[in-house]
Amino acid sequence: MSSTFNSHHLEPFKVHILGCGSALPTLRHNASSQVVEVRGKMFMLDCAEGTQMQLRRSKIRFTKLSHVFISHLHGDHCFGLIGMVSTFGLVGRTAPLHVYGPKELGPILDSQIAFFTHDLGFEVKFYPVDPTQHTVVYHDHSVEVLSIPLQHRVPCCGYLIREKATQPHIRPDMMKFYEIPVSQRNNIKKGADWVTSEGETIPNERLVTPADPVRSYAYCSDTRYIDDLWQLLQGVDTLYHESTYGDDHLKQADKYCHSTARQAAIVARQAGVGKLLLGHFSSRYENEEVLLNEAKEEFENCYLTNEMDVFDI
Amino acid sequence: MSSTFNSHHLEPFKVHILGCGSALPTLRHNASSQVVEVRGKMFMLDCAEGTQMQLRRSKIRFTKLSHVFISHLHGDHCFGLIGMVSTFGLVGRTAPLHVYGPKELGPILDSQIAFFTHDLGFEVKFYPVDPTQHTVVYHDHSVEVLSIPLQHRVPCCGYLIREKATQPHIRPDMMKFYEIPVSQRNNIKKGADWVTSEGETIPNERLVTPADPVRSYAYCSDTRYIDDLWQLLQGVDTLYHESTYGDDHLKQADKYCHSTARQAAIVARQAGVGKLLLGHFSSRYENEEVLLNEAKEEFENCYLTNEMDVFDI
Repeated sequence: MSSTFNSHHLEPFKVHILGCGSALPTLRHNASSQVVEVRGKMFMLDCAEGTQMQLRRSKIRFTKLSHVFISHLHGDHCFGLIGMVSTFGLVGRTAPLHVYGPKELGPILDSQIAFFTHDLGFEVKFYPVDPTQHTVVYHDHSVEVLSIPLQHRVPCCGYLIREKATQPHIRPDMMKFYEIPVSQRNNIKKGADWVTSEGETIPNERLVTPADPVRSYAYCSDTRYIDDLWQLLQGVDTLYHESTYGDDHLKQADKYCHSTARQAAIVARQAGVGKLLLGHFSSRYENEEVLLNEAKEEFENCYLTNEMDVFDI
Repeated sequence: MSSTFNSHHLEPFKVHILGCGSALPTLRHNASSQVVEVRGKMFMLDCAEGTQMQLRRSKIRFTKLSHVFISHLHGDHCFGLIGMVSTFGLVGRTAPLHVYGPKELGPILDSQIAFFTHDLGFEVKFYPVDPTQHTVVYHDHSVEVLSIPLQHRVPCCGYLIREKATQPHIRPDMMKFYEIPVSQRNNIKKGADWVTSEGETIPNERLVTPADPVRSYAYCSDTRYIDDLWQLLQGVDTLYHESTYGDDHLKQADKYCHSTARQAAIVARQAGVGKLLLGHFSSRYENEEVLLNEAKEEFENCYLTNEMDVFDI
């Protein structure tokens, strides 16, 4: 019976918060980085200074990290990249590391690798992302990653990480009971009924359990409030939306192209997401509960992030 | 009497350890950086990733830091520089920051500043250092900094920070007692006796207390054992000498141009320094006491460094 149970059990889809402060690292918060665990893969979103230490602290195995997506080229989102690449070299990595980000990152990374590393035992493959486009930047058989155009002081995009639809799950108990040969599994997954040797038709819905729901996570790193952003975020299970400021600094939010916690929550409500994670907190807030409370006035299911937090998506 | 006492009181000369691990940052150690407090100035030696956070943790005021000396261009000694410069910009620094290091650092820093900062409100002045020379790279009225050629896989130098000799201290009580005019103070500091109106000669040594001893600190960041290094370190009060490995990894020390703790202690003994600080520990040592014990077999007065330690020099 345990295999039947397992087929119903969703694979982990989690986000590990490595840093959720804004530009000024403090003793409370590191600058931006997080790792999303999805379908057995580890994708990093942004890579601020100190990320490699946070990665170690989180106990995520370095070798599991395969892809890094950089939202924009402000230091608090990318200064940790060359240090992490160097360390991966020192610990003997051989698997390629795939890095996505605005095109200007390519030559910067190339020149840093050329100057600061020696006999790097793995390839760093760079893929330019056009932050003005909403498009698929990565996909494999089980996951796709799309860019989400944001509005910040420099070209910037968020990322939407979405599972691909799976087929329904075969019920092993039914396969055994009706003695259905393995060769028929694919047909049944695609919806076929089964006709027994006695001529009885067993409807497909008795042979399978439904496909897993398609889950998705959106990361909106740095952005001013965008009134139609919700259109790209509809149906998202978990949204991380920057909330640098509280209502008390609405003007600063506008001036520096950031959002208030309330604005983040308005986007979450408009998009009808499952839950909202708040982060990218300005160092001016000793206590971020004020941000949480303002956000909750617009959208109830929201949470403050903190370093080493892990959220199920 | 308190002013007399104060004139005997030595000004602080301390080293704050911000990071004392080697290339691989661990949960125990950050990579190399330290701040030396001397004659009211704060000089940074190396600036690894995470240094700005360590600086904050150490409660050293950002504005007090005026000079940064980089020993060599391996990431674990300089990757934190651009992040620290960016943060200084964000917090409104206006005073120039003086950066010393191998000449290749200049254009790297320039291009990082041009790309990653915007309207930086202060000047970053770069001074190339020739790591093959033992020469004065900085001096002011009270302190001088000299380069110390080291032998590593890339051009590398340590730094010797030395107080300049002061004049003897005037004894205010004697000045008052003999009614010596202020105009005579400089002559007396330079060694003059005083002749009273009654014709009595007061010898200089009764009018002054001796000049403060000239103290010095040497930082030898990354180097293989150099058998004549002691000649540049004679009379140094406190020596920090890298001790990446223990006796068990003597071959690796040789291969990677690092030193063992024992070799560091041999240099300390040869140079006759006051005390030895061990650091730049390989991440392989869970317990660095083994390094300390091996060093102590050669030179008794030595200490393991640790993040946030502060040593008097």
